[in-house]
Amino acid sequence: MVQLISRAADELTTCLSTRSLNLYNMVQNDSHFTKKRSLYLMAKTGISPTRQEDYPAWYQQVVRAADLAENSPVRGCMVIKPWGYGIWENMQKVLDKMFKDTGHENAYFPLFIPKSFLEKEAEHVEGFAKECAVVTHHRLEPGPDGGLVPAGELEEPLIVRPTSETIIGHMFAKWIGSYRDLPLKINQWCNVVRWEMRVRLFLRTAEFLWQEGHTAHETKEEALEETRTMLDVYAQFAEEYMAMPVVRGEKTESERFPGADMTLSIEAMMQDRKALQSGTSHFLGQNFSKAQEIKFQNKDGGESFAWTTSWGLSTRMVGALIMTHSDDDGLVLPPRLAPKHVVICPVIRKDEERVTVMEYCESLKAEIAEVIYDGKPVEVFIDDSDKRGGEKKWYHIKRGVPIRVEAGPRDIQSNSVFVGRRDQPKSTGIDRSEFVATLVETLDDMQKSLYERALKLRTDNTHSFESFEDFSAFFTPKNAKNPELHGGFAECYFVDCPETDEMLKPLKVTPRCIPFSETEHPEGTCIFTGKPTRVRGVFSKSY
Amino acid sequence: MVQLISRAADELTTCLSTRSLNLYNMVQNDSHFTKKRSLYLMAKTGISPTRQEDYPAWYQQVVRAADLAENSPVRGCMVIKPWGYGIWENMQKVLDKMFKDTGHENAYFPLFIPKSFLEKEAEHVEGFAKECAVVTHHRLEPGPDGGLVPAGELEEPLIVRPTSETIIGHMFAKWIGSYRDLPLKINQWCNVVRWEMRVRLFLRTAEFLWQEGHTAHETKEEALEETRTMLDVYAQFAEEYMAMPVVRGEKTESERFPGADMTLSIEAMMQDRKALQSGTSHFLGQNFSKAQEIKFQNKDGGESFAWTTSWGLSTRMVGALIMTHSDDDGLVLPPRLAPKHVVICPVIRKDEERVTVMEYCESLKAEIAEVIYDGKPVEVFIDDSDKRGGEKKWYHIKRGVPIRVEAGPRDIQSNSVFVGRRDQPKSTGIDRSEFVATLVETLDDMQKSLYERALKLRTDNTHSFESFEDFSAFFTPKNAKNPELHGGFAECYFVDCPETDEMLKPLKVTPRCIPFSETEHPEGTCIFTGKPTRVRGVFSKSY
Repeated sequence: MVQLISRAADELTTCLSTRSLNLYNMVQNDSHFTKKRSLYLMAKTGISPTRQEDYPAWYQQVVRAADLAENSPVRGCMVIKPWGYGIWENMQKVLDKMFKDTGHENAYFPLFIPKSFLEKEAEHVEGFAKECAVVTHHRLEPGPDGGLVPAGELEEPLIVRPTSETIIGHMFAKWIGSYRDLPLKINQWCNVVRWEMRVRLFLRTAEFLWQEGHTAHETKEEALEETRTMLDVYAQFAEEYMAMPVVRGEKTESERFPGADMTLSIEAMMQDRKALQSGTSHFLGQNFSKAQEIKFQNKDGGESFAWTTSWGLSTRMVGALIMTHSDDDGLVLPPRLAPKHVVICPVIRKDEERVTVMEYCESLKAEIAEVIYDGKPVEVFIDDSDKRGGEKKWYHIKRGVPIRVEAGPRDIQSNSVFVGRRDQPKSTGIDRSEFVATLVETLDDMQKSLYERALKLRTDNTHSFESFEDFSAFFTPKNAKNPELHGGFAECYFVDCPETDEMLKPLKVTPRCIPFSETEHPEGTCIFTGKPTRVRGVFSKSY
Repeated sequence: MVQLISRAADELTTCLSTRSLNLYNMVQNDSHFTKKRSLYLMAKTGISPTRQEDYPAWYQQVVRAADLAENSPVRGCMVIKPWGYGIWENMQKVLDKMFKDTGHENAYFPLFIPKSFLEKEAEHVEGFAKECAVVTHHRLEPGPDGGLVPAGELEEPLIVRPTSETIIGHMFAKWIGSYRDLPLKINQWCNVVRWEMRVRLFLRTAEFLWQEGHTAHETKEEALEETRTMLDVYAQFAEEYMAMPVVRGEKTESERFPGADMTLSIEAMMQDRKALQSGTSHFLGQNFSKAQEIKFQNKDGGESFAWTTSWGLSTRMVGALIMTHSDDDGLVLPPRLAPKHVVICPVIRKDEERVTVMEYCESLKAEIAEVIYDGKPVEVFIDDSDKRGGEKKWYHIKRGVPIRVEAGPRDIQSNSVFVGRRDQPKSTGIDRSEFVATLVETLDDMQKSLYERALKLRTDNTHSFESFEDFSAFFTPKNAKNPELHGGFAECYFVDCPETDEMLKPLKVTPRCIPFSETEHPEGTCIFTGKPTRVRGVFSKSY
């Protein structure tokens, strides 16, 4: 009885909290938002403030409540905690396999880049000089006032890599002699540093973890194909694993990687309808190969410069994951990237129940661990900590464990379990063997429904514009009709030129990309310059 | 016929080369070495010089011939090439699982350590201040002479981590409030920098990759147990995966990690009979917890300092692997860590044979890829490059691919394959299905025989000493009786004191460790000081 009442109380809490989720969804599609605001605020949520109340603060609270990462005493640098690092490890595993399946090999290059290397490519150094960590000394010595001071000044300062085109290019030049050595397709998993004072965990930090692919090719066509292939790998990863729909396209000139001839990106819409650039693939032309003498003997016996590419994806994706799926109760994880899939919480009210309940839970755990999901055993664990039932449940809700299972004496009697799915409001009792038998289906369904929810958000908030006035209104806050809702993705005809960039600046909107299109667009008019154009772009505010 | 002659020629080359291996083994166990020297030098080997001729140069040539790593333009930093990185990736996979199985979680901490953090633990900073990379500025600006100069000086210099006790300890102090938060068991995979001018690839570089475990415990006993458990994990990894026998023991006072109360290590004998310290586990007592205020509320309601440990293993292990097993023909890899297990070389003399031979090889590859070795599919690839037969074979011998398979028209006719095993001299024809059916057995056997060979080397070159005179002679080169052979592991009674250290210095010998012993040794006499002692140590020259 005690168990029943306690569970009912927990359920009520979850329902209230889920009501907030449902309301949030309603609100997103309903212009009569203000009427419901007071009702909405009554609901208890796991995270405070809610997304509607203060999106940036909500994000911080989700990261904190899920124990994903925190600031460190080193300005700009974060500490990635085990649960957050577990997500990154899963991302790494999936991507690493995709890179290897597309013919890339991993290698490792120095952390430091001599200053002179960075200076070789003019646009490149221009892009990174303003935000780099500079090593100038190689030891510490007792100073005049007793403390230690830098000593052993280096002849040439070293830059902590902000990206590795220059150092890897230097090695490529040594390794490539003939067309037989091409293509050369290398990937590196490492840390990079881009000095940054304003920190947002995962989204913007001085040091971050990433992978950077670097390839050299015989022909321009091959390098272009590689650039596109790797963007597609990123898009596939985003959509199939992160359950995050993305727009694939080309960056405008002003948004290109410093030193690239072309930058492709995938862009995802976060729940505040801003864009997050989620992976970029650069066609570097012969810019770096000319700066670094990456030459080879071609098939005709002459000498050619190689065509190179680079592409990268970072721990920023953990931020993207959080912002795409999480709700007002905390983190929501797509099962394919969740460090753990199932938590089993034993319900023990009296000491004499302990042995029986724990045995039931242990055998259930063993059974679940035999289930193969996505090519690997389901990750399941028992939480036998001494937290109270409600506290324990909320702990796992906030951390985004996809499936929560409770089992107590009553469940054992009926050979059942009490199951909550992180993306659905209600927990339900279910036959134990049925639960195990349908577990993969459940996880697949959750993965799919998260994707669909994110896709719906994007679809609902993507609009096409034919005038700058409407475009401008779309991005202007406190629009009379709809005070809270503004912005999203705007599609329109445009000409990529400084004039366009100038008109966008006051709106704090940027061109996200020129989406790939199977067919050529009919001629239209640039909404910024009035010039004729066949180019359509996606614009939005962004991270 | 052409194929037969060509293969016979290849075989002859291998035999000659293998002769050098056999001779080397004989030489190691035979004091009449000089007599055979001329014969030995006649043999062709894949690597020049041989181990006997110049061991350090041989090592460098093995690394180069196997394409494992090379020097970079950044002084002290190496580039780890795909084949070398593949070995490290396999080491990582195995160790990472072992760490997780013993209850550790991965996390990530900042690359930079504020100078003041390093200064908190006196011995620790003393140990690392002389060899650290110091970041003093956070951007580059155009200087007076046109080039870029460091700008934006930092208020406090940052040290590129040489190890992370201080920064991780700082976070632990924040995370640990009560005994309920203990034990805290964290591991980090990362790069570290210890400034170093004299580089030896994998063995000694300014930047290297490693893992560092950091744990905090409620009691001294628990921390001591953790220290020992992780040493055992390292030893198990070394012996079962690297096929490298190790001595487990405690370091003497002068060889301890700066700031530790006790350092344990595993020590392996390389083929030049020097020791390589291959993984260390430190019991830090309360030194770091007192310096960094890692306190917790204990079970009695009072406040206690945590007991901490740290343990690390680095890319140096790749160097250990190379030096333990490789021979005068190049790299030899224990199958459990080999990036690839089997290479198939199609033998195609005429164009019209191509389709048939490639089909045979492709189907063989598919069949082999179905075989499960060590829990994963066997890694197999086809080398259809246009290298000539002998050249191709030597390429894979030097890279240490465990199993080489050749298949040409004659093999197809008899449904067989021609197989070479890297640790054995002769290639032999074998029925195709038998080859596949016994593949796992073959790999297991190779793993085992590499271990046994290494163990024999160590056993044969470990001696017990009762006088300093004999001990000294053991380590003195150009001993009249046996000009080339000297040294190895010396076991003896000793007292860990400055006097002992002084007597060892001229010999360039260090105490490697005090091996664990199940029973107490009877009392003996220190061969250095003449004092009575129950302590026996292992001494040797080392890397």
